Order: sequence, then C-alpha cells, then structure tokens
Amino acid sequence: AVLGARKMEDYGRFLALLGSALLVGFVSVVFSLVWVFHYREGLSWDGSPREFNWHPVLIITGFVFIQGIAIIVYRLPWTWKCSKLLMKFIHAGLNTIAMILAIVSMVAVFEFHNARNIPNMYSLHSWIGLTAVIFYSLQLVLGFAVFLLPFAPVPLRAALMPIHVYSGLTIFATVIATALMGITEKLIFSLKNPAYSASPPEATFVNCLGLLLVIFGALILWMASRSHWKRPPEENAKVLRSIGGTPEGTEAESTMTDGSNADKSDLRINSEAARKQNLKLDEAGQRSTM
Amino acid sequence: AVLGARKMEDYGRFLALLGSALLVGFVSVVFSLVWVFHYREGLSWDGSPREFNWHPVLIITGFVFIQGIAIIVYRLPWTWKCSKLLMKFIHAGLNTIAMILAIVSMVAVFEFHNARNIPNMYSLHSWIGLTAVIFYSLQLVLGFAVFLLPFAPVPLRAALMPIHVYSGLTIFATVIATALMGITEKLIFSLKNPAYSASPPEATFVNCLGLLLVIFGALILWMASRSHWKRPPEENAKVLRSIGGTPEGTEAESTMTDGSNADKSDLRINSEAARKQNLKLDEAGQRSTM
Repeated sequence: AVLGARKMEDYGRFLALLGSALLVGFVSVVFSLVWVFHYREGLSWDGSPREFNWHPVLIITGFVFIQGIAIIVYRLPWTWKCSKLLMKFIHAGLNTIAMILAIVSMVAVFEFHNARNIPNMYSLHSWIGLTAVIFYSLQLVLGFAVFLLPFAPVPLRAALMPIHVYSGLTIFATVIATALMGITEKLIFSLKNPAYSASPPEATFVNCLGLLLVIFGALILWMASRSHWKRPPEENAKVLRSIGGTPEGTEAESTMTDGSNADKSDLRINSEAARKQNLKLDEAGQRSTM
Repeated sequence: AVLGARKMEDYGRFLALLGSALLVGFVSVVFSLVWVFHYREGLSWDGSPREFNWHPVLIITGFVFIQGIAIIVYRLPWTWKCSKLLMKFIHAGLNTIAMILAIVSMVAVFEFHNARNIPNMYSLHSWIGLTAVIFYSLQLVLGFAVFLLPFAPVPLRAALMPIHVYSGLTIFATVIATALMGITEKLIFSLKNPAYSASPPEATFVNCLGLLLVIFGALILWMASRSHWKRPPEENAKVLRSIGGTPEGTEAESTMTDGSNADKSDLRINSEAARKQNLKLDEAGQRSTM
C-alpha cells in the first residue's frame, strides 16, 4: 500500500510536470502569434517581413514545442499499453512534422532575405540553426533506418540507442539556444525607435517568450532524463509474451528481428531469442544513457 | 582478457574525448583573447570598451571552460584513488572560481554600461545570464551545504543528488546558450562598417568561436552522462573499508554521517551503517539521473 501510494504520488508529479510543459509550450506558441500579429506585421507569403514572421512561429510551434512532445512521448503512462511500434511511429511522425515546419520556416527567411537583398547565412544564429536542422534530419533518417525498419541487428540497435538519445536531447537544447539567438537578432534589428535598449513593451514581451522557451526545454529535459518515468520493459515483455504464437505482423516481427537469413522455423526461434535479447540490450542501452 | 581489452579501449575513448574537450575549451579561450586583442580594443579596467572586453574573456574562461572541467572532474580515472572528499573540494573549488570570474565579468559590463549611459538588464541575454549566475550560486551554496558539510542526513543527499546533477548540466547548457546570445549581440553592435551581415573576418572568426563553445558543451555533456565513466563505487567502498577503524578526520566522518545525536559508540555504528547506506543511495541517486 505504501508502495502504491508512492507510485500514485510519483504519477501525480509526472502529470504536474507534463501539464506544466504543455502549458508553457502552448503559451510560447501563443506568444509567438501575439508577437507577429500584435507587435509585427502579421503573416503572409510574399517576400515581405510578413513572410519572415513565419520563421519564429513555425520554429516555436514545430522545432521547439512539437519536438519537445516527440521526445517525451514514450514517457506517457497511458501509452504503455500501446505497442512499442505504434509509439515509435508517433515519435517518428511528430519529429517528421517538426522537421518539415523547421525547413519551411527556413525557406521563409531565405525568401525574405533574397527579396530584400539581405545576405544569407552570415550570423552565428544561421550557422548553428542550419547545423541543427541537418543533424536533426540525419537523426531522423538514421533513427528510422535503425529503430523502425526491421533490418538493423540487435547489437547495433543497442549500441546506437544511447547515441540516439544523447543526440536527440543535445539537438533539442541546441535548437532552443538557436531560438534565443534568433529572438536577440530580431529584437535588435526590428526595434529602432524606441530601440531594444529602451525596453519598449515588445522587447519585454519577447524576452518573456525567450524565458518560456528555456523553461519548456528544462521541463522536457527533466522528464526525459528520469529513468523511473521510462516506459517499463515488463509491460513490453508481457505484450510480447501474449503475442508469442503469432509473430507475423506484430511489432516484434517488424522491428525486432535480426534480419538473418535462417529458414522459417529457425527464424521463429531466432526472433524469439532476439526479442528477449533486444529487450535486455535496448533497456541496458537506454538506461545507461540518461 | 577480452574484458580487459574492452576496458582499455573504453579508457582510450575517454582519453580521446577528454583531450578533445580540453583542446576545444583551450582554443575557445585563445579565440576570446584573439577577439579582444586583435579585433577589438584589448583589456583594461577603465569604463571603456576595453573594460567590457573582460566580459567575453572571463565568461569563456571561467563560466564555460572551468565550469565544464568542474563537471567532469569525478570522471578522471586517475582521481579514483583519491578520496571522494578531496574530489568534492576540487569540484566545489573549480565551481567557486568559475562563479567569481562570472561575477567579475558582469561587473565589467555594468561599469561599461554605466560609464556610457547604456541601460542595464534590457536584453534577453542579460535576463537569462543573470538568472544563470543566480541559480549557479544557489547550486554552489546548496551543494556545499548538503554534500560537503557533514550535517545533511543520507536520505536527503540521495534525494538531492539527481536534482544537483540535472541542475548542474542544465545551468551549464544555459550558460553556453547565453554566451551565444552575447556573441550575437556584440557582433551586431560593434560591427558597423562593414556590418555583421557583410561577413568581415571578425564576424567569421567569432562565429567559429560560437561553434567551438557548442562543441565543447556537447563533449562535456556526453562525458558527464555516460554512466560507465562514473567514479566506481567499489573503489569508494574499498577506501572506506580500509579506514574503517579510524573514523575521525576521514571523508566518511566529515561528509557522510547522518548528524544524529547518538552517543559515541552508537555514532560509530550509525556512521558505519550510514556509510553503506549512503554508498547505495548515492549510487542509486546518481545513476538514476543521467
């Protein structure tokens, strides 16, 4: 009973943190919209500053908020009864949406710059931002190839999982740092009379947006790095055991076989063993990381 | 023999990463000096831009490089034969030096601003930077009170260790993000003819400094979050066992007793038990974090 109470308390703490992260993330998106509609020129796609304005809105919506949710999607306790494969698709899907929004948001800046003859890619913000988008895309392609497609052998998955987790969190932190640089640039360039240094309402408002992004990042990193909030491996094992007789078309079959060319009956045994090994290795790999 | 070879390989990998981090950190400090001496006005303490220039130099030297080393100091394998207490003092000492340099570097900016009638604390860089310094100081004071002074009970230490580790890494990442914002501000404000957007040599050079800071941060976070590179608890236990008969004046006595008011003989038994429990809890706390 004491253990149960502790578990409930821990569950309550997780929900409180998740609620905070969703609230802070949502308010950040609202702040970005208030920024461009109330303080700036609004949104359109015509080479004007209104096209540039898609950049902060799409970055904060996609590259910060959606990426943040994608990172902690395995942590949601009510998804633990869903198959791991489904959760992998949701994780990959959210990250794909985030990547598309990030790329569109970059196109908006390039078109705005070109329409105004402003040079591209001169600032530290642009250097680190483009690097982050490239690494993010690589991470997505590699993650898809290794953890979703059924070809990667189990030891490779186990070896790459800690790197996948570390890269994901590091890219996420870098994206937030890049957003802070972008806010700094935009406020300096667009606030002229009064200047940024005179702290007009827009400056204070957008500084608060920057603080919200840092808080959102800190909440996501906390939730992602608590090992006791990880998807429990037992649940996973139970699911696997209950579907043991029908290996075809299940997550285990489609994502966890080691791709060896054994004959049918061997394959069944191999994949059964591989699953168990995979669970252990996957687990070990994940837990050793963060 | 295979295990030994693997251990050596792992040790080699750690040394390579440590060497890379030291090199990147050192080159960052050199870049900050080249920036202020070659491209800017140099250093002095007279309210001129030369006083401002202490800001990037001291932040990169103290708040980035020294803080980074302080974070991974427990990871150095050749320190595992030293007492944990000594390592705690080195960790706290390096962080104290970093804090002092960060505060002096802020004083330099305030004095420069005041001499020129530039407002203080208007930018996102200043908001997040000051917040980081305050949290860093709190972390240092709390860390000293809980983990170095002998008063905190063992369960409190165990409960706070994951938070200490998470806060430390999050503050470190935030400091690097703040440095990137600072670089962005300074390049926009000080490059006028040619402007930042024309990519003069100084702009490219200091952008590279920003990239180096990101690489340094990524290396430190990787080394800090690999659980197999942690100071091994067995070594710790061995040291404790060998000093079991003389509890006074040892690390165990000065940092690990639970501060209860038991009489002398009870205290000896209590502290012996507390040590063992502490090792376990400390270990559990640390491993569950990152």
